[in-house]
Amino acid sequence: MAMYRVHGMRASGNCHKVGLLLDLLGEPYEWVETDVTKGATRTPAFLAMNPNGKVPVLEIGPGQYLAESNAILHYLAEGTPFLPADRLDHARVLQWMFFEQYSHEPYIATSRYWLHILKEPEKYRARLEECRPRGLAALGVMERHLAAADWFAAGRCTIADIALHAYTHVAHEGGFDLASFPAVRRWLERLSALPGYRPMAA
Amino acid sequence: MAMYRVHGMRASGNCHKVGLLLDLLGEPYEWVETDVTKGATRTPAFLAMNPNGKVPVLEIGPGQYLAESNAILHYLAEGTPFLPADRLDHARVLQWMFFEQYSHEPYIATSRYWLHILKEPEKYRARLEECRPRGLAALGVMERHLAAADWFAAGRCTIADIALHAYTHVAHEGGFDLASFPAVRRWLERLSALPGYRPMAA
Repeated sequence: MAMYRVHGMRASGNCHKVGLLLDLLGEPYEWVETDVTKGATRTPAFLAMNPNGKVPVLEIGPGQYLAESNAILHYLAEGTPFLPADRLDHARVLQWMFFEQYSHEPYIATSRYWLHILKEPEKYRARLEECRPRGLAALGVMERHLAAADWFAAGRCTIADIALHAYTHVAHEGGFDLASFPAVRRWLERLSALPGYRPMAA
Repeated sequence: MAMYRVHGMRASGNCHKVGLLLDLLGEPYEWVETDVTKGATRTPAFLAMNPNGKVPVLEIGPGQYLAESNAILHYLAEGTPFLPADRLDHARVLQWMFFEQYSHEPYIATSRYWLHILKEPEKYRARLEECRPRGLAALGVMERHLAAADWFAAGRCTIADIALHAYTHVAHEGGFDLASFPAVRRWLERLSALPGYRPMAA
């Protein structure tokens, strides 16, 4: 089979997820760096791969593209221990992945984008203030879960953990201090001890 | 097996999805009406079911709860024609479901919530203006896809269609006119012709 090609931006947590899972699986891949801050997702060539104009995109074969970071994780994890086959465990993994995209990413990743990627705290001050309580609420939901469980679903590291790890391990770059979330910090340490693990590039 | 119990609000598209799939599957269920505008998702009893405090919640058995509308659809559809078993088709269904929760719902459902549920157009005017281009962009992505395909994935109606139908068939209640999206309108008609179909309660 041809090698996977990932169209993504190294500094994006959504893209990092995909690279991290491929690393944990020991699967080789080619990375095509795609800078969203410079309009690289708005070109006709990019929109032909993903009409929604977002990274990451997984190129599976000639003309075969898959978008949405968490759908890509699902595709890559199928048949591996990172995606349980049991019906309820499988749905529980997806529950946390939808939580990540709806209740976590829009507040924590977005704050990080304004502060760390665009470096415009003043311009986005009102937005940052709006995002703050909602990002803290998401971390609170994670903390309560992880106080009683090592992983998010199925009793082991799954793609739910990979998805939630992405923007949590760089939450401080979005102004979210993890000091008051000790169970979250211990979970990040467990994850970073897995063979093949690497954090996001600085 | 005991009957499923759905904790949801009739006027919510995310909750309607779950009822609609159960209707299409001919599966009986009990509905527990849960009014989010009156704090019903903030009680200790509700938070014990879903620590994220959101409807819908599927009660599968005693003490067994599943949250996130699209994870619930996945659980209910497994083993039925609404969820393809093929690896890429499965991921493609999820691609559109993550698109729905990240690029469609936060703009179209949110606008509808302010206009149709809370009935406060003036209070949310600035937010409505921000959501408008993004909601139209999501409808544009759907229109381009549906101009060349009857359904979102796997060549048949899947839970990707059920998920995207929820807030699209009431988009006008959020101020989004579907007149310029003819392929979307034809897709809504195809879906409403399925046996067991019902629209959201007025």
